[in-house]
Parts: sequence; C-alpha cells; structure tokens
Amino acid sequence: MPTFTLTDVSHEVWVETLTVDSAELGLAVTAPWSLSKRRLHGGRRDGVDLIVVDNGALRFVLVPTRGMGLWKGFYEGSFLGWESPVTDGPIHPALVNLAASGGLGWLEGFDELMVRCGLENNGAPFELRTPNPDGGESRVAFGLHGRIANIPASYVAVHVDPDPPHEITVEGHVEEVRLFGPQLRLETRYRTIPGTNRLTVRDEVVNLKDQPAEFQLLYHWNFGPPFLDEGARFSAPFRAVCPRDARAQEGIDAHDRYEGPRPGYAEQVYFYDLAAGIDPLDELVADASPGDGPSGPTLAMLHNAAGERGVVLRFRKEQLPAFTLWKNTAGLRDGYVTGLEPGTNYPNPRPFERDRGRVVRLEPGGRYVAETVLEVLATPREVAKVQAEIQRIQSGVQPTIHSRPVEPFAPAS
Amino acid sequence: MPTFTLTDVSHEVWVETLTVDSAELGLAVTAPWSLSKRRLHGGRRDGVDLIVVDNGALRFVLVPTRGMGLWKGFYEGSFLGWESPVTDGPIHPALVNLAASGGLGWLEGFDELMVRCGLENNGAPFELRTPNPDGGESRVAFGLHGRIANIPASYVAVHVDPDPPHEITVEGHVEEVRLFGPQLRLETRYRTIPGTNRLTVRDEVVNLKDQPAEFQLLYHWNFGPPFLDEGARFSAPFRAVCPRDARAQEGIDAHDRYEGPRPGYAEQVYFYDLAAGIDPLDELVADASPGDGPSGPTLAMLHNAAGERGVVLRFRKEQLPAFTLWKNTAGLRDGYVTGLEPGTNYPNPRPFERDRGRVVRLEPGGRYVAETVLEVLATPREVAKVQAEIQRIQSGVQPTIHSRPVEPFAPAS
Amino acid sequence: MPTFTLTDVSHEVWVETLTVDSAELGLAVTAPWSLSKRRLHGGRRDGVDLIVVDNGALRFVLVPTRGMGLWKGFYEGSFLGWESPVTDGPIHPALVNLAASGGLGWLEGFDELMVRCGLENNGAPFELRTPNPDGGESRVAFGLHGRIANIPASYVAVHVDPDPPHEITVEGHVEEVRLFGPQLRLETRYRTIPGTNRLTVRDEVVNLKDQPAEFQLLYHWNFGPPFLDEGARFSAPFRAVCPRDARAQEGIDAHDRYEGPRPGYAEQVYFYDLAAGIDPLDELVADASPGDGPSGPTLAMLHNAAGERGVVLRFRKEQLPAFTLWKNTAGLRDGYVTGLEPGTNYPNPRPFERDRGRVVRLEPGGRYVAETVLEVLATPREVAKVQAEIQRIQSGVQPTIHSRPVEPFAPAS
Repeated sequence: MPTFTLTDVSHEVWVETLTVDSAELGLAVTAPWSLSKRRLHGGRRDGVDLIVVDNGALRFVLVPTRGMGLWKGFYEGSFLGWESPVTDGPIHPALVNLAASGGLGWLEGFDELMVRCGLENNGAPFELRTPNPDGGESRVAFGLHGRIANIPASYVAVHVDPDPPHEITVEGHVEEVRLFGPQLRLETRYRTIPGTNRLTVRDEVVNLKDQPAEFQLLYHWNFGPPFLDEGARFSAPFRAVCPRDARAQEGIDAHDRYEGPRPGYAEQVYFYDLAAGIDPLDELVADASPGDGPSGPTLAMLHNAAGERGVVLRFRKEQLPAFTLWKNTAGLRDGYVTGLEPGTNYPNPRPFERDRGRVVRLEPGGRYVAETVLEVLATPREVAKVQAEIQRIQSGVQPTIHSRPVEPFAPAS
Repeated sequence: MPTFTLTDVSHEVWVETLTVDSAELGLAVTAPWSLSKRRLHGGRRDGVDLIVVDNGALRFVLVPTRGMGLWKGFYEGSFLGWESPVTDGPIHPALVNLAASGGLGWLEGFDELMVRCGLENNGAPFELRTPNPDGGESRVAFGLHGRIANIPASYVAVHVDPDPPHEITVEGHVEEVRLFGPQLRLETRYRTIPGTNRLTVRDEVVNLKDQPAEFQLLYHWNFGPPFLDEGARFSAPFRAVCPRDARAQEGIDAHDRYEGPRPGYAEQVYFYDLAAGIDPLDELVADASPGDGPSGPTLAMLHNAAGERGVVLRFRKEQLPAFTLWKNTAGLRDGYVTGLEPGTNYPNPRPFERDRGRVVRLEPGGRYVAETVLEVLATPREVAKVQAEIQRIQSGVQPTIHSRPVEPFAPAS
Repeated sequence: MPTFTLTDVSHEVWVETLTVDSAELGLAVTAPWSLSKRRLHGGRRDGVDLIVVDNGALRFVLVPTRGMGLWKGFYEGSFLGWESPVTDGPIHPALVNLAASGGLGWLEGFDELMVRCGLENNGAPFELRTPNPDGGESRVAFGLHGRIANIPASYVAVHVDPDPPHEITVEGHVEEVRLFGPQLRLETRYRTIPGTNRLTVRDEVVNLKDQPAEFQLLYHWNFGPPFLDEGARFSAPFRAVCPRDARAQEGIDAHDRYEGPRPGYAEQVYFYDLAAGIDPLDELVADASPGDGPSGPTLAMLHNAAGERGVVLRFRKEQLPAFTLWKNTAGLRDGYVTGLEPGTNYPNPRPFERDRGRVVRLEPGGRYVAETVLEVLATPREVAKVQAEIQRIQSGVQPTIHSRPVEPFAPAS
C-alpha cells in the first residue's frame, strides 16, 4: 500500500507540501481523485497544516494541527459545514486560550464541520477541587469540550490501497498527555472510496497509562445551509428524547424541525436515546447497551425542507450510546447551524455524566473503537430511502418525548 | 493605485518579504520613501511579521501579528516610543497569556509606541458572573486592555497613491470574534505622505453580528525620551481633569508636568474632559458630544522641558470623547514613559464605564470611525505654534481641576 | 575564540541550521566532537529549536525554545533523562498553558533531563491577593515551577576555545520580564571538554530592574533507567533530611533507596540539608551558609542497584543551599523517574519559602551565580570513588533523619 508519511515527530519527519493523485500513482480508478497537503501562513491560521482530499465526488479538508479535525467538505456543489463567526480559521491552537471567557475559550477556534470533544472531558465547563501532588488542594477548571481539538497531531500519514477501489486513508495520532494527568492517544483514520458520497471516521482511543483511565468522546458534526433551512428536518430512530434545559423545553414539540435564521435565537439542545438495529451476525449476542433494546447500527439524518438534500451519520449504539442535537438557528452571520452529535456521553459536565455511568473506563493499554460514517444525500430519492431505513428501526419502538428535563438525561427541572 | 497584498487569509495570500520604494515604482516624489515587510525569527518574536515604512522623514514600524499595532517610530533622529522592560519584543501573541498574573498578562507583550486597547473591553481587569449557553452560570474574567492587540491581522495590504503627493497607506483587518461572543472587525488604515512629519491612523470598527454589539477602544500612545524628560509638559485644551485614584490625587497640582526617572515611582493616571474646536463647516450642526461644548477637533501635546521637541495627537472629540493621561516616570529600565490615550472611554472596568454611557453600541453591520493624527514637532517654533493652537481652544473655557476622584470620571473617593 | 551566534533578537540574528565539528574547525583535539542546530517541525514541537552537542563521549541536547533547558543526554550508550508521558516533546511553549489544570499546566511540557524552575517563583502553585496598578485588588495565581522553562531564549551562541582542550560553550539568555513585574535575565553557559564525562551548567541571574528584586531557582535533574532501577541508591552527605508530607513520611526509612516501577505509586519528596566540604583556598573565609557547617562544594549521586553506573551532581552549597529529592517510581509508562534538585529553596509555595529566608534578593543590576556539574559514572570503580568522596564529607557529621515534616523544611504535620 503506497504510504506517504506527512508528520512523524518520533522520527523527525514532516513534509511541508504534498500532492498526489490517481493519475500520478498509475492506479486504475473508478473516479479521478487527488490529495494535497500544505501549510497555511498569515493571520490566526499561521502554521496550520491542511490536508485536502478530493475523492472525485466528495471533497473534504482535514486539519492535523487542530487535532485532526474535519474542517469543511463539499459534495457535488453543496457545502458541508457552517459559516462560523470565526471567519479567519482554521485557528492555530497556540492562539486559543481554552481557559478564557469562563472556560468557553474553545469557541475562539470553533468552525469545523466535525470537531471532536474530549478526551479528558467534554461538555459544559466545570470546576473540581482536586488534591495537588504536594498534598494541598487546588481548584481545577475544565473548559468546554476539552483539549483534543486544539492539540497538533504527532503522526500523520496517507495510505492508498493499491487494489481497487483504491480506498484512501488519512491516519493521524493525537496525544492528550501529561505527567500525573491523562495519557490518552487518539488514533484516527479517515477513509473514503473514490467516487463515493461516503466518508468513514474510525477512531481508536488508547490508554497509554499503566493505570486505568477514563475518557469522554463526542463528535460535534455541524451543518448549515444548504442542508439546514427553514423547515429542515432532523430524523433518527429514537426511544426517548429529552430537552436539556428550560430553553430547550420551549421547543420540545418541534425538536425535529428547524426554523429559519433568527438573530438572537438562543440555542436549544436535545438528548436522545436512539433506537438501533440488529446486526445480521450479532442477533444472538448479548446486548452491551446501557439501556434496553438492540445496540447495533443506527443513524441520524438532517435533510432540507424540500427533502432533496441531506446528510446522514451512521454509527453503532454500543460505541456511541448518547446522541445530542444542537439547534442554533441564529442569524446567518452569528452561526446558523445545527449539530448532530453522537458521543459516549451527553455534553453535561463530566461529574454529572460519570455519576450516570456515561464516562468510559479503559484498562492499561485498553483501546476503544468508535466509527462514524458520513453520507451525503443529493436527491429526494436518496433522502426518502434513508427515511424508510429510519422508519424500519423505529417501527415497533414507541418513542417517549419528555416535555421537560428528566433524569438520567439531564438534571430534572 | 498600486496595491501590494501581504496577507489575505480568505484567499490564502501571504507574502514573506516585500520591499518597495519610490524609485522602483517610478513615481515622481517629494521625498524618497521606502516600505519593507519581513518576518522575524528566534526568541519570543519568532513568527512575528513587521512592516517598516520610511516616508523620507518619518519612519515607523507596524506589527500585523500584534493586532496591527504601531511598534516604534523615528523622526529626524528622535526615537518615538519607549524603552519597555520587554526588551525582546515584539512578542508573538501565542506566548502572551492574557489571563496570567491576575488578568495583567497583557503586560508581557506591552512595548508599543501605540497599542489599541479593546475591543470587547479595555481598562482594568474585572470579573462578570455570566450565564453559560447551557443555562448554568460561570465567572468570566476580563483581562487588562482586552484582546485586540494580541490578534494577528487576517488582511494586510499596502496602497501607494499614483497621484502626487503619493500617499502611502497600510491597511489591516483584525477580527475579534467567536461564537456566542463578540464579532467585531477592526479595519485600520495608516496613512502618511512622503516627507511629512505626520501619520494618520484611521480605524473603523465593524459589528459583524446580526445583533447589536458593544465595544470599547482606547489608543495607548506611549512616549519616553527624548520627548519625555524632567520638566516635560503635557498640554491640551480641557474643561476638566480628574485624578483616577488616591495615588494620582497626590500629584494633581502637577498633572501636566513630568518628573525625571525615579525608581519605584507608582503610576499616576488622570482623566480629562477635553475642550474641542468647531469645524469651519460644522458650526451650525447639532452637537453630538455627550458633554457640553463643541465636539469637533481637539489635540493633545507632549513636549520636552526645553520646548524644542514634541509630539501632538489630533483627533475629534465626538469620536474619542475620553482622554486619559498615564504618567509612569519610573526608573529608566523599568519603563520611563507617559501614555497619551484618546479613547471612547476611560480605562476603568467596563461595567463602570457602561453605567456612565461610555461603551459604544453598534447596530448590526454598524461601523464606528475614529481617526488620530500623530505629528512630530522638531523645533521650538513648531512646539510654540501648537501651544498657541491649544490656547485658542482653551480660551473662554475655564478648566475644572478636581482635587480628588469624582464621578462620572472615576469612583468618588 | 570561534563564536557562532545562533539567535540574537536585538540584532535580528537567527540561524536555522548549523553544523560544526572538530575537523571542520581544524582544531587539534583530544576527542572528535560535533555540534549541530536545527528546527523541529510538526506536532506540538513545531518551531522548536534544538542544539545537539556531542563531545565525543557525552552527547546532550539543549532546547533554546524551552528556556535553554537540557532535554536529553547520552553517555557511552546510557540514556540520560527519563521517559515522560509527554512522548511528543519537546513541546513548544505556545502550546503550554501554565495556568491550566489548577496551575499544573507546566506538566504538559515536562520531559527534560534538566529543567529550571523559577524565576519569579517555583514549587507548588499558590495564589496571592495583590494590588492592581489601578488601586484595586486582584487574585494572582502562580503556577507550578514558574515560567522560565517556557520562555524562548533571546540570545544563543556557541563558543569553541581555540586552545586545547577546546572547551565547547553554549550560551543562552532568557528574559522573564514585564512592566510592573519581574525583570530577570537568565544567562546560562553549558560547558564541556571534548572526550570527558562532564557537563557544567553555569547560570547567572541578573536583576534588570531599577529596584531590588526577588527570585527562586531550582534545577530539576531527572533520571530514569538505566541509572534508576529497583535497589538504586541516592547518596549525598547530609546533615538532615525531612519528608515533605505524610506520603513522604511513609517512606522515610528508605529515603535513599528506590523501588522498581509500580503503577499508582504516589510521589515522595524529601528535603535535605546537605553537608558540604571546605575549599582548599577558602578554609579561613567566613562561612556564608544559612545553616551551620561549611558551605563549600558538595555533591549528590544516584547509582543503580548494581553500583556500576551513576550520575553525580556537584555544586556549592552557598549557591544552592536547598536540596530536594523527588521519588516517582511509578509505572514505566507513567514516568518512572527520580529528581535530584539543587536549588535556592525547597519547592514549597513561595510565601512559605520567603518566610524562612529562602528567596534570594538582588539589588538593581545584581547578579547571582549558580554552577552545577553533571558527571556520568560508567564503572563500579567510579561509583565507589564518588561514594568515598561523599563519606569523607559525611564523616564527623551526624545526620538527623526527621520521621515527619518539621520546620523549617516544611509545614510541621
């Protein structure tokens, strides 16, 4: 398999610029693809490395410098991502003070199509009183959504499968480590097959510590127009939905419908317990889900009002059991966006999640796998097909719609 | 108009090195001028971009990486600026932790001839208790003088007027933005005409948000020797002056005179309500000033004891209604310096200023213009001429000298 | 003396790459040596400058970007340093938030063989309530081990003595400065003679302020295998040893012996009052030591269980009167390491140390010299010889072993 190592700090490898494509590699292809890597200069993006993958139909941009995040995408003319108030990104992590603004400093760099939240913590800021190594006590503040999105990758490589259909893989490793602290490594692989509408994100979180460790991981997938518009719909098979707070409670009856842009709109967040399907081969296997019902493959879709474009995320419930929907249909310049967020947990403060068993524990050397597939739907027929798929899983499951915050999703109001 | 774009992140433009001059452009000139741009390497300045403009008489250095600040200047052998304890600047913003030292981290990079304080806030640090997006409450700390001086510019361009006198303009855009936070853009233009003693700083602050926004802007112009020495004088037409605190109160009788360097001197700060002149064309226009009297052009001068060198700032009172004088005649190695600071507000904590109507509100898309002209005076005659100009505006205005802090300038003692 | 200036911000000198060796300089040598300088790229080390010195027997790596720290070393096949959980270092200071994690952010970059702790403060985090320049009060947090290790050097030069034995010197200057704050300069010189097992670290701390200033300096020398193993021994002449806290108290009977790696081991820290020898020439000179007894040369050794390898630090007690031993025999992947730490003080919070006279005061322009010599011992005979040297100083000094924390070393339990 042709491999191009772009960064490997342990061997002092770093490549400033790379361009490869299907023609150059002489691989028979279903679709002409290309991949390029470059470093950005100037502004708040100075020193940020970018990787652009164009599979011939789907184009996406990865940012090794920002924790291997997925910055933007394009599919047959449709923009994947959102127009963030951060207009000059991707922002170099050295210029993001995560502790600023009462723990909301993470927002200074937030502009991605998909950004990982974690690994030591994700969700809302909180403060712990923690013993110092010297025996004293100190207040430790944990900022919104953790650190992983602002850590440059220590290892980045591109692999192209020499056999048809010549799958392209971008692999990256990001370490969230310190003495007396977490020693977690994210090993991510973005995979796509030339000519398709699919991007697979397969992550492994490794505990490098000689002791057990905890982590949290949430995928913050963010979409604006043309997938989000007035009347756009969210659709997923679910067993329960719960508003996060009083503000979300106001909109519970329309939890799956979107308004048009409205300046001053305050975000609404919903926590879902999704329903899942049964794997053909796993039907007889004991259920590892924390709740009831199957814990196999599930999916969540956003489609526009006309039902002619959509995006769907596919993942497994036993890997990512908690699903959060973030609605932020604010003014177009203030971030008109919705977040589809499969995670190991809901984005409540970590102590709340731990008490409810939603923090993952890894043994020394332990490894946790989570895989999500993004598909872009470009026709009414494709949207309808996914809708039918959702309905198949939903059938026989009577969803519970909580009219106010309830346990164990959120602090009861 | 010949334009050289040095940075434009939206088009991935960044130029590492540029040198242009009057001869190269073939422009008939009154004075031979030159402009160069380069990137610094090593130490705490690694990665900082500099622009040096020499108009043939006045030379000045701009720092796009530090919010388009004005680092140093020189006019006919006289140094414009001050000897900061920060001897290895200009410091890269990535190495400045604004939240450090109890909110005084800004001082780690402070060494400029002119640095902007703002835009979300300026002045002394303060803390707000603010609601989180998730409905909780968090304590948000605001550091001294805000963030704008530590944000790299996203756009930098040089324009040379093809028509005589071939004005040179350096334009820069700096965004202070984040989701759920400020979305303010500073658009600055530094303009100078070859051979002159003048530098114009014209700023526009734009509200990029779909909602109304507030901002603060203060220009921290700092001068040391040879303009500052024992017996140097501050001069401006004013209607009132007020000491900021008990320490400033001690020196109110000499508010406009300077001591020589004295190790251990604690800073003294005075707030002025300046008097302003009437524009020839505006005489019949309604007065937009928050106080009484004309709100047109005004000026403030520093000259040395011998009255043979000086600097003068010219600005309009309706744009920059609050003027602050910072006296810090400490030891020569500890920062022997004075700050002449026209602003939209006094550098009290923002909540204090807002309560007194000194925080600017901008509608969506709104734009605020502030222009300041620096003139360097190199002869006793020039100093005397400006002094006479000040006296003309002062005439008929009886200044009030408050012997202690009073409202609305400062918390009454 | 051939001098190669690598960085000099005051003259805009910065050299990206340098390689020199004994052959190139045409100097008659006892051992072939070489020196190279390069910049690292990619990951969290992007933009970090490294200097590698190989004296023909001893090889060591300096990091100008991280306060002129000593990253790693090698002597005849033995690794000098430790395997930190920070596996992707050396980490650029711009990515280290010293205020994070309750003031323990310093640990995010901690992976050095020798890192300086200071200069404004070192030791455990603490908080002061301090007056603002504006007369208000603010809480100021001081993080673990201060800032000096995360400040890039403003000046770096290499000197090679043209006369035999052609001593190699790497000189670096690091400023810890800000207005209204510390104005301290570290001037360090690393010196080695080709072919030897010795590295001398000579530091001068200069007070650049026009007022008296305080500082703290502790050398955190860190060793893992092959010098540290189960049964390894610490050895130094001492008058007293005191456990830092209840945890250290548990191990006081084995304060000088090491366990093998044990996951979950909580660090144990011991404070020593070392005994010192008498300089041949200084025998009649009045004793400047804060305690009793001679204050001249002393030493501290770590050797492995077999007594066949060791490292020894030599320094003068009047320069570095406080010695701390850090035992952290945790799992191999969690930092199996011990710290030998000569310092001006123990790493208690600065207010505690100041009250006990262990904060150094410098007059304006004052200069403090501290020199430490590292020797690597590669045979049982060399280890035994140093052991005998230690015993000579120890003879006649009856050591006190405090079974619990006592003043003035630590807060009494």
